[in-house]
This record gives sequence, structure tokens and C-alpha cells, in this order.
Amino acid sequence: MTRNVCVVITARPSYSRVKSALQAIQQHKDLKLQLVVAASALLDLYGNAVKVIEKEGFKVDRQVYMILEGENLVTSAKSTGFGLAELATVFDNLKPDMVVTIADRFETMATAVAASYMNIPLVHLQGGEVTGSIDEKVRHAITKLADIHLVCTSRARERVIRMGEKPEAVYVTGCPSIDIAHEALQTMPLVGDIFSLYGGVGPRFDLSKGYLVVMQHPVTTEYKESRLHIEETLKAVAQLNIPTLWFWPNVDAGSDGTSKGIRAFRESGQLKNVHFFKNLPPVEFLKLLKGSHAIIGNSSVAIRECSYLGVPAINIGTRQFGRERGQNVLDVGYNHQEIIKAVHRHMQNPKPATDLLYGDGQAGKRIADCLAKVPLNIEKHLTY
Amino acid sequence: MTRNVCVVITARPSYSRVKSALQAIQQHKDLKLQLVVAASALLDLYGNAVKVIEKEGFKVDRQVYMILEGENLVTSAKSTGFGLAELATVFDNLKPDMVVTIADRFETMATAVAASYMNIPLVHLQGGEVTGSIDEKVRHAITKLADIHLVCTSRARERVIRMGEKPEAVYVTGCPSIDIAHEALQTMPLVGDIFSLYGGVGPRFDLSKGYLVVMQHPVTTEYKESRLHIEETLKAVAQLNIPTLWFWPNVDAGSDGTSKGIRAFRESGQLKNVHFFKNLPPVEFLKLLKGSHAIIGNSSVAIRECSYLGVPAINIGTRQFGRERGQNVLDVGYNHQEIIKAVHRHMQNPKPATDLLYGDGQAGKRIADCLAKVPLNIEKHLTY
Amino acid sequence: MTRNVCVVITARPSYSRVKSALQAIQQHKDLKLQLVVAASALLDLYGNAVKVIEKEGFKVDRQVYMILEGENLVTSAKSTGFGLAELATVFDNLKPDMVVTIADRFETMATAVAASYMNIPLVHLQGGEVTGSIDEKVRHAITKLADIHLVCTSRARERVIRMGEKPEAVYVTGCPSIDIAHEALQTMPLVGDIFSLYGGVGPRFDLSKGYLVVMQHPVTTEYKESRLHIEETLKAVAQLNIPTLWFWPNVDAGSDGTSKGIRAFRESGQLKNVHFFKNLPPVEFLKLLKGSHAIIGNSSVAIRECSYLGVPAINIGTRQFGRERGQNVLDVGYNHQEIIKAVHRHMQNPKPATDLLYGDGQAGKRIADCLAKVPLNIEKHLTY
Amino acid sequence: MTRNVCVVITARPSYSRVKSALQAIQQHKDLKLQLVVAASALLDLYGNAVKVIEKEGFKVDRQVYMILEGENLVTSAKSTGFGLAELATVFDNLKPDMVVTIADRFETMATAVAASYMNIPLVHLQGGEVTGSIDEKVRHAITKLADIHLVCTSRARERVIRMGEKPEAVYVTGCPSIDIAHEALQTMPLVGDIFSLYGGVGPRFDLSKGYLVVMQHPVTTEYKESRLHIEETLKAVAQLNIPTLWFWPNVDAGSDGTSKGIRAFRESGQLKNVHFFKNLPPVEFLKLLKGSHAIIGNSSVAIRECSYLGVPAINIGTRQFGRERGQNVLDVGYNHQEIIKAVHRHMQNPKPATDLLYGDGQAGKRIADCLAKVPLNIEKHLTY
Repeated sequence: MTRNVCVVITARPSYSRVKSALQAIQQHKDLKLQLVVAASALLDLYGNAVKVIEKEGFKVDRQVYMILEGENLVTSAKSTGFGLAELATVFDNLKPDMVVTIADRFETMATAVAASYMNIPLVHLQGGEVTGSIDEKVRHAITKLADIHLVCTSRARERVIRMGEKPEAVYVTGCPSIDIAHEALQTMPLVGDIFSLYGGVGPRFDLSKGYLVVMQHPVTTEYKESRLHIEETLKAVAQLNIPTLWFWPNVDAGSDGTSKGIRAFRESGQLKNVHFFKNLPPVEFLKLLKGSHAIIGNSSVAIRECSYLGVPAINIGTRQFGRERGQNVLDVGYNHQEIIKAVHRHMQNPKPATDLLYGDGQAGKRIADCLAKVPLNIEKHLTY
Repeated sequence: MTRNVCVVITARPSYSRVKSALQAIQQHKDLKLQLVVAASALLDLYGNAVKVIEKEGFKVDRQVYMILEGENLVTSAKSTGFGLAELATVFDNLKPDMVVTIADRFETMATAVAASYMNIPLVHLQGGEVTGSIDEKVRHAITKLADIHLVCTSRARERVIRMGEKPEAVYVTGCPSIDIAHEALQTMPLVGDIFSLYGGVGPRFDLSKGYLVVMQHPVTTEYKESRLHIEETLKAVAQLNIPTLWFWPNVDAGSDGTSKGIRAFRESGQLKNVHFFKNLPPVEFLKLLKGSHAIIGNSSVAIRECSYLGVPAINIGTRQFGRERGQNVLDVGYNHQEIIKAVHRHMQNPKPATDLLYGDGQAGKRIADCLAKVPLNIEKHLTY
Repeated sequence: MTRNVCVVITARPSYSRVKSALQAIQQHKDLKLQLVVAASALLDLYGNAVKVIEKEGFKVDRQVYMILEGENLVTSAKSTGFGLAELATVFDNLKPDMVVTIADRFETMATAVAASYMNIPLVHLQGGEVTGSIDEKVRHAITKLADIHLVCTSRARERVIRMGEKPEAVYVTGCPSIDIAHEALQTMPLVGDIFSLYGGVGPRFDLSKGYLVVMQHPVTTEYKESRLHIEETLKAVAQLNIPTLWFWPNVDAGSDGTSKGIRAFRESGQLKNVHFFKNLPPVEFLKLLKGSHAIIGNSSVAIRECSYLGVPAINIGTRQFGRERGQNVLDVGYNHQEIIKAVHRHMQNPKPATDLLYGDGQAGKRIADCLAKVPLNIEKHLTY
Repeated sequence: MTRNVCVVITARPSYSRVKSALQAIQQHKDLKLQLVVAASALLDLYGNAVKVIEKEGFKVDRQVYMILEGENLVTSAKSTGFGLAELATVFDNLKPDMVVTIADRFETMATAVAASYMNIPLVHLQGGEVTGSIDEKVRHAITKLADIHLVCTSRARERVIRMGEKPEAVYVTGCPSIDIAHEALQTMPLVGDIFSLYGGVGPRFDLSKGYLVVMQHPVTTEYKESRLHIEETLKAVAQLNIPTLWFWPNVDAGSDGTSKGIRAFRESGQLKNVHFFKNLPPVEFLKLLKGSHAIIGNSSVAIRECSYLGVPAINIGTRQFGRERGQNVLDVGYNHQEIIKAVHRHMQNPKPATDLLYGDGQAGKRIADCLAKVPLNIEKHLTY
């Protein structure tokens, strides 16, 4: 019998991270995809993921606005509450056989609580990892609500089991984000002129001469410092004076500090070597990364996809604390001199090799197969 | 410096379970109590706890309606979402130094998510226990959101630590519900005629000749069966034909099945030996238990307070699955014959002795002392 | 081109009142019905209208829980807010060409605000009437939000126009509730034994010997008095000692006082001549009314349908204040003696004749035709 | 006895418009002010009114985030719903004797519905006016929910009465915004260098040589056109090439089109004569207006305060349609040539004289006196 699999996408990066699984679910004869697009995935300001999703051939079954203006900790909590209330209505109407939630963004808790309270088997992708900040609490809380855990690494599986989950409910599938990296490598090079195609603001460069990529998100539990943090990165990039493609951060409490820092620095005329983008289609973005000298910031892309792609990464601060790393990562503090030094060190060394730590490019299919066969059971207990 | 401690009470039984801690917080020179009363604690139908709370000398700082009508799984989820959104506003206005949430009812997740997302240190009482149903998921998910764990038993402490929490953040305080049991024992006997004082419906009995107490809640993940379950208990009580005091269940998905079952059975005239109450003041209720032959049902009172009180308990079904038991408990299935047999067995044996498993009657003070001194820190990571 | 007409049903009586219009919309070649069932129309306690709606052949496109427990003025306001937020999502997903809202229940404001704020042409049925209580404010506020007004009487049309609406946007269609009354008259008599078919509690009667019908709702702006009010009716019915069929009230702030009053009176054993029902299918209910001596209470059915049916009505108190009346109505205060006297007076007189004040039985078709042709325009201004 | 007057401020311009009334309430011996700050009045992006409010000596009793991101029609509706639900809790806790709501912004409906549903007498300021767009519907719907109407002009009073309100509940107090204009005139000139004091972006000018002021909001029911509209104004201002102070628009559905238009035009380097501000303190803003050649846009300030101040206004498009105008206003379409022509015409003529149409500068006191004495009654009916 066909299983209705409801996937809730709440942000542009979550979509990238799950796209290959969506395709595999769509193509699987025993599964039917129910797609809910919500939260910042509906907003222009954060890349309007819903348009990309529709353009890439997925039918959106429901869209739900839920993010409150304010971009602070109060509104993160309230947005999650409103989202939870609305997603319950969505699940009540769509009647899925299981609900899939992704990783650890604050609003994913809305999906997780709604499904688990409604006795719908909850599948959690990318549990068992360790990072910093509120994401850490969210991720493991969702593990305790979820019935089925599809994790990226064997280390992650061990952690989920140690938290008291039954081993037979925890599967290593690899991360679907690596599937996109795999696709990117197979379809290189980048097609067309990204400046004409994807707009953005700032000067245009000749990409063939090398460039840096920056992607830095605010760290929620360090709200007030987010402006100071971003200013170190801004200084480093200005001083490096290498052509740089900067990608705008997610919606998160604190992003106001980050955004303001960027805007003020830019107004002051010190970023002549930087072009700002909102976002690129995932595969194109990964090709762009593949061609770069290095990625700077605190995005998980630097840790995950770039380990597979073999792209040098300068990881700043605490956001990726505890996440397993490949050979491509140098960790630095919120300090422009450390950042500069790390870029130089990477550029002097040969590019790192492909690392299969986060997957081999087949995660999407493995996830779909698993969803089609896994026993659906909502009763569980601590194993100790 | 004084610490503002915000405690959120969402139900009558949660109030009973935390009352001695509220008193100790109120009396502690370094603590200031901020009391929020919400959810079913505001509703007539579930005992109007807010009136009791005010009568017992607590000032209520905020009251928040959040329970949707429907008493099903959808409305449990939605209620939690609306509660989360509103509690965030409450915390934003009250600005507490820490928030205390109690145990594992579905709506406690609203308190836990609001506080943790707002970077307010979250204190969880009664974590680390094991039961059945959705409570199990809620309890451990809150453990992963909480910063400070005040647990009832050393077994519970071990479990919380095994889930990856830092040992230095987990304290065994005992359960404040035992403090009330302690107070009840010290102020025996019951004062006045409970039928005149607390109303209810059904015949009046001479309590001095012995009686049974029943308290049975629906089990949320077995929604459809709740009516069948309650009917077995109803049959057993009818056949036992011993004077019985029956206490009305909590608000929970499924309580409709339970309520309907009770009402229908009562209409049919088969419960001539039963008087129904909504609720009694906690201490009086425990004195009443102390004087009974036994308690029947699936309430945690039977496991916790009754182990200290030495009251025989017949625990039905899966709701208390996994919870540590003293010598006073006999477990039975949803089967009227098993229930009858267990009542008879208890009545033939001597009353069980006091068991300190869940505390020694000083938990409230220990909790207040702990809240006054515990380091307040919201950053945490899995310990493995 | 087909127009998508979204109708939002929030209560059992609203469904009865709009059913013939739903059928006509469904059958109209240029219209497509989008049906949203919400609020108390989803709740067992208020007659579970959604089950009736589906059984009578309508497909429900969305269902939305929105009523908070508490049944007081705070929860009425909050429920409307949550409903508004959710209905906006529903309209955003269904993309109707127009939204239809019915009459003046508190939660209809949610429909009206959502549609008007989203620039969806709003059609209001049954505006321009005058009653008492909060309904009065709700009804006229919706008139000011609505773009198209389909009213029941020419007096109502005049009032809507005097409030500043353009005459060309106000149509007299008659009330669809009269269509059901028309159908009831044409399919008399009542089929089967209502006690077996529709359950309820209390004694069974031989209906051929005559009976009374009672339907009394709490009046929201007189919250505290609702219990006193209902007790007068209870006394009157007890003293009349004529077989009586009593229908349970709507969800409304204050219904708790009403419900409690009924329950307490019943427990006391003074209502041996009363059988209580939750609800009957609308047509059967109207046949039942047709066969009765009289209807007692404050339901609009007594004013509207009963004027067409020629059923004597005793209208109690302020709830129907200002509503146009036919010859069948005697108005009384909250006073059991007045009620008794009015019942006797009605029973001594011949039954009143059919009155076409509220329509001729063709309102549904007229509404559908109007919706198919009316210019859709959301810009409006006061006409003075 | 002291009356608790709860005023809900949801936006920076609403605060300006009611400030003198807040002061008069605060100073009145029989009134106690309860101040709720909500919606865009809490947001940095819209001028962070809450900080201004506190700096100007008001104690904020509650703050409530309620605006959803998205700035479209769906989110306007949803924000209003969430605001309604939360304001009901606020009123339930603050227990005001009356609630004051201001004018006609979309979110004021939340205040109006919450208060009226909770039987709290609702006072509406600035009803009875006529404009375009959704504001028109909101304003008159609130009139139908309100119990007491304090209007600005005698024409407005007539309209409110014609809509069916009792004449004795409608008072002409004048508009409190004129009180601020009065204060501005009495404390001229502007103090200090506005560029240093209030930041903003763009070049600095010598204000003594004359300048224009621009303030243009999106018009909600013309969502898609908002970008085209703003571009005409941008072209006009660029071609006029007179030093211009441009004030950023409110939060409203469509403001994204407006904001984007402004940003894109600015990026293209065509606005060398424009300095952008978020906002100024109200009195300073009015002094700035007083010193300008003219105000351009569609703000109500141009119609109201500027009629009293005698500042020429070029009013663009439909937003102020129907509002009573003094001699200072020239109306133009969304057309840069019309705008340019109107500016030139104004600059060639002598400045207009003070017009008392909207008040004489004593509205605040009149409002407070009225609130202290007005009969509080929540029952009303259409007068016809």
C-alpha cells in the first residue's frame, strides 16, 4: 500500500539538504509525497525557496506563513508556536502516514511536536550531530520526539542510540546534501554568468581568477555579539582584498545584528571586492564553491558538502562546534587576523581530497527505500 | 541578588505536585516567585485550580487560556502551539531569571520551548522517569531542552545523565508531591464531611467502614480504546460493590471516550456504590487515600504518593509503565476480573510500609535552595 | 468562467441556515463550492455538524479547530483570533474567488476579516437585521467589511443601505433557512421514532399527543445571569408538565451557566417531562417543530422558520430583540410565570398562518444565481 | 472612582497621533493609563516606537509581538488574528475599564474585536472619516464595534451617526495630532542638526535653503502596483533635484514593493538629492515639515497636521481619497509630471494659512475629560 510521506520545508538551506530525498520519494512506487512549504521558505528576504521548489518540479500541497517580524528570541519562540498550531491543522487535513522533519532549525520543532502529538510516525533526518547554540537543544529534543532516525554518519547513529533510542530505529543513510554535491561534480562547470543570472549587488568579477565565498549566520545564543562577530569577518574580507561572493544569512534571532553590520560596512565603502547574493540554485552554488579558493563563515555547507567536494573551509566561531569534520576545515575564532591567516594557509596548500564522511551521494534513494519499508510505530521507551 | 523564578502551572495535579516547592520559593530570601497559571488549570471542568491556588495564598501573575475544545490529538498539538506563542509574550514581559516546568503533560512542552528558545535557563522537575505513551516523548524531549534537572530518584538521575546531560546539572531533590503526603500524615485525620464540603454526585457513604478510590486517565496513544478501558474498571467497581470515591480525569486527548464511558455506565444505573468528585484539596485528598482500602486506576498518585503513604494500589494498563514502584503496587491489565482479584489480594494483606523511593518530604526546600544557588547557564552539549 | 465560492461553516445552526444555498452552489454550472468546516461545527458537544455535512453529500475541503475551552468572553475573543489566523492560511491555499460568511456568530468575524484583508470579495448572508447582545456588533461590523450583501428582508436591505453601503451591492434573496422549512412542509410527516433515531436522554413520549420544544441559548453580554435565565425556563417547563423536547445550546460565552443550570435541575429530578437532544437533522427538526404546540426559548428558529411554518413561539428575553417578527411570536421576560401564561395563550388560539416575511423557499437558488453574476469588486466607500 | 484606560499603540504614526491624549490621561486625577505597545511599534525596521514611548516618560505595561514576516495580504490577516488572541489575554490580565483604539490600521481590528467581545467598553478615536483601500473597511467596522466615538471633525460625527450610532455616544474632540502640531509651532525652530541627531543615509543638506519632504506608503488593495507607484515619485524627486528628506514607509502589505523600488532606484545612483530617515520625534518632524517647501506622498500627515501648520501638500493617488482637506492640498495621480507640476505650483504661491478643520490643539485634554465622564455601556443597537 502506498504510504503518504509529508515533508515540511521551512527554509532554503533545508530544501537543498533534502532535495534528492524528495525526488526519490516522488519516484518511489510505494510512496506519495505531500509537500508543505512554510516559514522563511516563503519569504523573498530569505531566497523565496517556494518558487525554486515549484520551478524544480515539486507540487506544493500547503504553504504556511509563520515567522514573526522582530528577528529576536521572543519571536523565534512565538513563530514556532504559531507554526505548530497551523501544522497540526495541515496534518489533520492531509492525513499523512508519516511526517519528515529536517535537522535542527528552531521552527522544525513545530513540525516535530505536531506530528508526535498527533500520533503520526515522525522521521528525523540528520539527528545525532553535535554543534553549538540552541540548535543543539532542538536537535536532540526532536530525537526524543521522533520514531525513526535517518542519520548521516555512524558516529551520529551511536549518539542517538546512547540517548536511549532503539538501535533498530536508527539508520545511517548519509546526508542528502552530499547527493547534490555529487550531482554538482558530475555536471561541472557552472553554466552562464552568475552576475547576470542571479543579480545581487556589488561589483562583478572574472571568476576564472579565483575568489572566496562567505556565508556567515548569527549564532542565536550570542545575540548581542552577532554584530561584533560579523565585523571581524568583514574586516578580514576587506583586507584580503580577493574577489568575494557573499551569501546573505538565514532568518534567525540575531540576524538583524549581522545584517546591520554588513549594511553599515558596505555603506562605508570598504567592501569594493565583494558581491552580495541572496542565493543560487543549490547545484550551481556547489559548483561555485568547488571553483573557489575557500569558503569562510560558519555555514554547515563548509563542513558537510565541502568535505565531499574537497573545498577548503575556514570555520569561524562556535556554530559548528562538535560537528564532525573532514580534512578540509580550519577552525578560527571571531578574529579577522586568524581568518586572514587561515585563508592564506589554505591557499598555499593543495586542495583537500574527497571525504565520504557525510555520504557517498546516494542518500536520497536510501531514505526513500527506508521510508517505504520501515515499521511504523509510535510507541517507544528509553532503552535503559 | 534576588532571582526571579517563574513557575508555570498548567493543571490541577501539577499544582499539587509542586505546591511545597512554590511555598519554599516564596519564603526563600534570595528568590522571588512569578506564578503563571494556564491551560486546564483555569477551567471549571478540570477543577479550577487557579481558584485553589489563590485561596492558598499565591498571587497569580498571569493567566493564559490555551486549551482548544475537541479533546483529541489535533487539539492537543494546537493548544501547545498557542500556549507556546503566548508564554513567550509572558516571559518577555515578566523577564524571569529562570523558568520551572513540571513533569510531562503535553502542554508543558509550550513552557519548555518558550523558555529555552528565549535563552532563559530552564529547570525541569521530575525528568528521567519512564512511563508509557506520549508523556514519555514529552518528558525526555524536555530533558534535552532543559538546563537544570531536579529529579525525584537516583535512578532518574542516572537516566538523565545517560541521555547526555552533564552530571553537575542533575540534582536528586525528591518529589514535592511527597512533601504533601508528609504533611497529610502529620495532620491526619480528614476534617469534616467530604460530601458536604466537596459536592460531587452520587450516594454518600460512611467512610469509617472502608472504601476504594478510583482515578483513571485516558492514555493518549490508545485513543480509541479509552472507552473500552474505562468500561473494564467500571465493571470491576460495580461488581466489587464496595463504597467507592471516583475522581474525574484530566483534560487529555481521549478523555472524551473515558468521560462518555463513565456517563453512559452511570446513566444505566449500575454504579450505586460510587460517588464522583471533581477534586479535593491535595492534602485532604491524600488523607482520604490514606484511609482507603486501595486506589484503583492509572494515576501517578498511586505510584508516588501512595508508596510513601503505604496505600495499596491497583495500577491498570500501560500509563505508568516503566515508572519505579514501591511495594504497594499490583499491576493489572484492562480486565475487570484482574482488577477485582487484585483488590481482594490487597485487602487480605497487611497495609504496606512507607517507602522513601520518591522522597522524604523535604523536596520543596531542597528545590528552592537549589534554585537559589545553581549556576545559570544556557549553553550545553551532549556529553558524548 | 467558473467561480470558486468558499463557504465557511462554523456551527450546526449556521449549516442548517445555509444548506439550500450550498446545494444550489454545488449544482450551478458556473460555480464551484469550496467548503470549510470549523469551530463548533467540528465538536461532538455541539452536534458534530461536520458528520452531518458529509453524510448529506458535501465534500469538506478543510476543517479547522479553533474554539478554546473556557466558554467565557476571553476565550470567545481568542478563538476568533486563532480562527482568523488559520482561515487566512486556508484562503491562501484554496484561492477562492469569493468567500461567503453567514449571519453574526462571534467566530464569523474571523472569516470576514481574513477574506476582506486578503482582498477576496466577501459575501455576507443575513446582514441588516437587528437583535441584542454582541451579535448586533458583529453583524454590522461584518456589513462594513463585506462587499456583497445578500439579505433576508427588504427592511434589512434598507438598513444596510442606510449604513452607507451601495444599493447595487445589496440583494434581497430571502433566508435559506426558509427553504428548509419549505422542504419540511413538503415532506411531512416526521419519519421514524425520534427517540430511537437520535438518542438523547430522558423519558420517551407519544408525540401524537402534543409536545413543546425548547431551545434557549445564553446571551453573551449577560454572562453572569445565564444561569438565572435558564432556571426560569426550567421552572416553567416543569410546572407546565407537558411532554417537552429540549435541544442543547450552542457554544457561546456563558453556555456554561446555561448548561450547569440544566444539569443541576435535571439531577434534582424535577424534569420528568423532558427529553434532551443534542440535535436532529434540520428537516426533521422543522417537521418536529411543525407538529409541536409551541417553541419556547430565544432561538432565531422561532422567529424565522416558525413564521413560515406557522408554529407558535414564546420568545424569552433580549436575544432576538429588534428582529422582525411574524404573527406567531409572543415575547416574554425571564420569568417562569410569563412563559407559562404565553404557552397557555398560544394553545388556546388557532395556529398562525404562513408568513413570507423571511422568504418563500427559493433563497438558495437566488443566492447561487447572484454569486454567479454579481460584479466582484473589493473597493468601496461610504455613500455619504 | 479611578477608571483604568487601556490604550493600545500598534505603530509609530499612531503614537504620534495619540500622544497628547496619553499625556492628558496620565495627568487626569480620575484616570489611570494602561499602555500596551504592540505590532510594528516594537520593530526596529519601523522606527522602534516603544523606545521613543519609554523615553518620553510613559510606562509600558505590556508589549506584544504580532506582525508576521511576508508583508503581504495573507500575513496582514494572520497578524491581526494572532494579535487579537494575545490582546485578549492582555485585557484579561489588566482588567481595564475601557480600551482605546486609534484610527484604521489593519491591526487595530485586533484591539477592537478583543475589547468588544470581552464586554469592555471600546473607545474609537478618529472614526467617521473617508479614505480609500482596506482602511476604509477597517475604520467603519470598528465604528460598529465601538461604544464611544471620539471624532476629529463635525463631518465625521455626522457620518458616524448616519451609520446608526447614537448621537450621544459621538463626541467631536478634534484630532490629538493637531495638539502636537500646536506644540511644534510654539517651540519652533528645529533644535540641532537632524543629520547628526537622527542618522539615516544619503547626503546632508543646508536646510536653510529649502527642501522637500516625502512620505509615501503602499496602498494595500493595489499591492502589485506599489512598485510602479513609488517609481513615479522617485522620478519626480530626482528630476526636481531639490534637497529632499524622505521618510521610510510603515509596515503594510505591499511595502515590499515600495521598499524594493526605493532601494533599486537608490542603488542606480539617481537620488543624489535625497537623504533617507526612518523617523524623527513627532514634534521635530512637524517643525521640519513647517520649514519645508512642501510634503509629497500619501501620508495623512499632509492632510491633517499640515492643514493646521499651513504646509503645502502634494497628495498622490487614492490613499487619502475622501478625507476632508484644507486649502493646503493639491491632489495628483501616480505620475511624475503631475507631481513636479504641483510642487512648482505650490512653490510659486504664498504658503497657506492655518486651518482648524482637524482641531485647535486641545484634543488630548478633551479626550481625557470625556473618558473620565462618559457613561460606560456596552449594549447598543442600530438607531433605525
